[in-house]
Amino acid sequence: MTTALDAPPLGPMLDDIVSNHRPQRESGSVPANIPSLAGVPFSRFGIAVATAAGDVFCSGDADVPFSIQSISKVFTLAMALRRDSPGALWSRVLREPSGTAFNSLVQLEVEHGIPRNPFINAGALVVTDHLMDQTPDAAAALLDFLTAESGPGGPFIDEAAAASELRNSSRNLALAHFLKDFGNLRRSAESVVENYVRQCSIMMTCRELAQAGLFLAREGRGAAGAVVTRSEAKRIGSIMLTCGMYDAAGEFAYRVGLPGKSGVGGGILVIVPGQCAICVWSPRLDTKGNSLAGTAALAELSDRTGWSVF
Amino acid sequence: MTTALDAPPLGPMLDDIVSNHRPQRESGSVPANIPSLAGVPFSRFGIAVATAAGDVFCSGDADVPFSIQSISKVFTLAMALRRDSPGALWSRVLREPSGTAFNSLVQLEVEHGIPRNPFINAGALVVTDHLMDQTPDAAAALLDFLTAESGPGGPFIDEAAAASELRNSSRNLALAHFLKDFGNLRRSAESVVENYVRQCSIMMTCRELAQAGLFLAREGRGAAGAVVTRSEAKRIGSIMLTCGMYDAAGEFAYRVGLPGKSGVGGGILVIVPGQCAICVWSPRLDTKGNSLAGTAALAELSDRTGWSVF
Amino acid sequence: MTTALDAPPLGPMLDDIVSNHRPQRESGSVPANIPSLAGVPFSRFGIAVATAAGDVFCSGDADVPFSIQSISKVFTLAMALRRDSPGALWSRVLREPSGTAFNSLVQLEVEHGIPRNPFINAGALVVTDHLMDQTPDAAAALLDFLTAESGPGGPFIDEAAAASELRNSSRNLALAHFLKDFGNLRRSAESVVENYVRQCSIMMTCRELAQAGLFLAREGRGAAGAVVTRSEAKRIGSIMLTCGMYDAAGEFAYRVGLPGKSGVGGGILVIVPGQCAICVWSPRLDTKGNSLAGTAALAELSDRTGWSVF
Amino acid sequence: MTTALDAPPLGPMLDDIVSNHRPQRESGSVPANIPSLAGVPFSRFGIAVATAAGDVFCSGDADVPFSIQSISKVFTLAMALRRDSPGALWSRVLREPSGTAFNSLVQLEVEHGIPRNPFINAGALVVTDHLMDQTPDAAAALLDFLTAESGPGGPFIDEAAAASELRNSSRNLALAHFLKDFGNLRRSAESVVENYVRQCSIMMTCRELAQAGLFLAREGRGAAGAVVTRSEAKRIGSIMLTCGMYDAAGEFAYRVGLPGKSGVGGGILVIVPGQCAICVWSPRLDTKGNSLAGTAALAELSDRTGWSVF
Repeated sequence: MTTALDAPPLGPMLDDIVSNHRPQRESGSVPANIPSLAGVPFSRFGIAVATAAGDVFCSGDADVPFSIQSISKVFTLAMALRRDSPGALWSRVLREPSGTAFNSLVQLEVEHGIPRNPFINAGALVVTDHLMDQTPDAAAALLDFLTAESGPGGPFIDEAAAASELRNSSRNLALAHFLKDFGNLRRSAESVVENYVRQCSIMMTCRELAQAGLFLAREGRGAAGAVVTRSEAKRIGSIMLTCGMYDAAGEFAYRVGLPGKSGVGGGILVIVPGQCAICVWSPRLDTKGNSLAGTAALAELSDRTGWSVF
Repeated sequence: MTTALDAPPLGPMLDDIVSNHRPQRESGSVPANIPSLAGVPFSRFGIAVATAAGDVFCSGDADVPFSIQSISKVFTLAMALRRDSPGALWSRVLREPSGTAFNSLVQLEVEHGIPRNPFINAGALVVTDHLMDQTPDAAAALLDFLTAESGPGGPFIDEAAAASELRNSSRNLALAHFLKDFGNLRRSAESVVENYVRQCSIMMTCRELAQAGLFLAREGRGAAGAVVTRSEAKRIGSIMLTCGMYDAAGEFAYRVGLPGKSGVGGGILVIVPGQCAICVWSPRLDTKGNSLAGTAALAELSDRTGWSVF
Repeated sequence: MTTALDAPPLGPMLDDIVSNHRPQRESGSVPANIPSLAGVPFSRFGIAVATAAGDVFCSGDADVPFSIQSISKVFTLAMALRRDSPGALWSRVLREPSGTAFNSLVQLEVEHGIPRNPFINAGALVVTDHLMDQTPDAAAALLDFLTAESGPGGPFIDEAAAASELRNSSRNLALAHFLKDFGNLRRSAESVVENYVRQCSIMMTCRELAQAGLFLAREGRGAAGAVVTRSEAKRIGSIMLTCGMYDAAGEFAYRVGLPGKSGVGGGILVIVPGQCAICVWSPRLDTKGNSLAGTAALAELSDRTGWSVF
Repeated sequence: MTTALDAPPLGPMLDDIVSNHRPQRESGSVPANIPSLAGVPFSRFGIAVATAAGDVFCSGDADVPFSIQSISKVFTLAMALRRDSPGALWSRVLREPSGTAFNSLVQLEVEHGIPRNPFINAGALVVTDHLMDQTPDAAAALLDFLTAESGPGGPFIDEAAAASELRNSSRNLALAHFLKDFGNLRRSAESVVENYVRQCSIMMTCRELAQAGLFLAREGRGAAGAVVTRSEAKRIGSIMLTCGMYDAAGEFAYRVGLPGKSGVGGGILVIVPGQCAICVWSPRLDTKGNSLAGTAALAELSDRTGWSVF
């Protein structure tokens, strides 16, 4: 445990939050198309805070691995931006909030195959296709990256869950073929969706995710040097704040006031610029697909610490 | 040639129409995603009228085979209706004009995976899936049906064109996976699209198509007996009139006043209830995807003959 | 009573239909924004058939006046077409089925202020504005027209109902201002909506409406000579068939197979080209806004008589 | 001039920015429906920074009054929040980015009359209606508020411009009647639109707007005490960041990284939490309706100062 003994307020505060928000009764939902998520006990709740100073504060189920799902999109975006001239990616995907559900095809049709942002599924498929140009197995590269940032022996791909999710990927295949039809996918729809699903099936703990996301709170500097530039780190933060919580980005910015990215596995990664990265996890979701208990916990944490970008 | 010598007005009238409407200059467009259609000379123009009395009047390129494309949807609908309890099909597809382009995904999303009618692509994919329950190779069954109605040695599947069109079927694959996601496709998206594309790649002449469609003008009675009931024939006509010309159904009903179904191969099949079936063909299309010269020719024919359902 | 004694089948058939379809229990709905319609007893049911030969067959409440509502749109369209060069009107409104609810603003926005057809509310407001160019009180002119076709002493405007409906016309005012914003309204939004509401508040009986609509079954010839040309009559019929039943036009064409126009007062006017005009009335509506009992009655009448344009 | 002599970097930096961004040639557009804006010279460019310490740095046309237009929405939102229980307002308007143009009716229809956020026109009309409950002349109250924050003798309503804009308010009248139809407007559509247009027609200088907005950078504390609570100030900032720049909110967050609100008069108000409020003005607009030169100037200022919330 790397918790600094000289930082008493945060540790007990996290314990409080776990005690206040750990679900006592079943409520919320699990995604219908991802069989492996249905079996996670509803009472799971973990939280971790990795500080710029190098401490990690944890409470609850912070060391239980869960499926990171769409939180992976933050990291693949960072990987795409650091490898490439930014213009190359931004000609294929916009940076605007979508105003619609994360897997909608409507906006894609209206806007002729250019996804609104890299965090809706269509945008993440384009980012994956973009990464695959240089690294055909983008999911393996993502796993290497996450391991390097969060420590060895941690993250792994749940290949059985990925295979099962892939058999229920009709919506993502529809999006990928639609992108292909608009000329905005280079590889085959099937190969991009398969790789994307494997990225989503990476298993990590709250502690590991907070550590892996810390570079975004430290102006781009990760465990072993610059991951992205200071400017890129800020810009990823802006996309998280405006687009990171599916169709509830505005509500989350209003209640929590911090850049965040959620996944349907129930995790949420949040950045406090200059200070820390936070990961909270609880598996049951609200109607927008964000962790029910996790969102409430982050609102309380933001209120008690005063952490907010505004 | 089965033209009746004692019906002078119609023969010369068709010759007139060919002379008035055969394209003299290149105009209009060909579909971008179907390579085999691009090579058809723009000046092709044929017309055939098959009468309830058994005559066939032809002019121009009425004996040149062309790709029937979406005209196939009239026949697969008839096949699905005659085999099955109607309710089984109509629970999976509506009967309303779409008000949007034939391959739009928007309405499908808004209406939760139930296509608006059997003549938009999504609806035709559902009809194909429905047919495949009983006859896995629905395209071969369609070919048998068309041959039985129009005479042996006629219709054939252009397998090379089908293979090439299949390589450009991203939009239809997107639609099929989307239908699958909504639970409205039983077979795999890939197998349904492949079969659908082969149906569209059937080659027929104007003469053959007019003969094949004649059962719709004869209360369901085809070359060898009832194809569908009188009531079903009328109802197929109503769907042709309200939904048969993509997003120009209203305009076609206004100008021509007859049930019709067009294909992006440039053919249009039109029914004059109780009297005849008409097929006109000219390959260049207007912005809605209907034959430019074909539509104009049918408007003139309707004006000169007074044929109209209204 | 002008019923021909020598036409036994139709009279008893109408009595049968009244007996089969007159509502025995309350079901369906009344429009929320038109207070005067809420008070009409649910069990009202009338039917009238006016034949090209000059007979009128009636049964049930065929002589009880009701609010014609959107059935007025058929007659204002005819008035606009006969007074004007057709192009002038058709540059301001399309002739395509809408695929959406009759009072939707969405399509109007997507299509930049050109309504899809003259029978959705936006289109009828444009037709009213068009008529008002020549006859500022278009509602009074419509009343004169209907009286001339159906006999003196009949139709009248229920001014109290109009005033009350006008106070609940926010949606129509929104549509009118939206049209104005797109430059597709010449007069003030308020004056056009007021006149339109007065047209809708005309009270007529089934008998009168069948007589008034007869010119559409007689190639444009009305009580005192040509109302519109033969070609215009056919074209109005085509718009009725493709657009006359709100978002259920396809379903009505499928079940009944005849051009029709419904109103939220519970009336439906149907044309059998060359033969007769039919008006049925029962006040309770289905979810699409069409008379519940009226639609069912027309399906039975069409089945028993074989009347269908297909 | 209140510029602090001991703050050399900011003064010269603003002069630089004026020199770099003042338009030399006509480009961009002016809004078609607001005649008074068309006459403003394209070369106008002003910038002002009001610091939490009480200094105001200015350059260029920072003392030329211009029409604040939609920047008024930030202040009416603050007024509505401080007077009322927040729940009362938030039950009538959401806090999500819209993903569509600021004056679209589509989303309003899809979401049944609840505007997506208080900064699209529909949302601002609801806020105005909400304010009018307590202060029927909400525009006069807004003027009082702005005067109190920015100093006497400053802001004024250009009543002639308001009257002329009101004559071109069809779109806003359509929105207001549409809201009324959904039951989300208490006063008459006409009175709400008139008051809203007068709010938009308030004339202020960059210096005055920066001073008036300073409370948002100072945790809610204005010139004469608390305007809103610290929490409300942060939350207004979050809505500015996610929704303040019409359909370019994401792009602005990405490039500038600060909460901002633009108006079609060419002004943009930006908040640097804890530090300062910035107002830039240049009248020509980009395709999204935001000041062309103003946006570019803010991107440079953010780059040079490092000001960003991320």
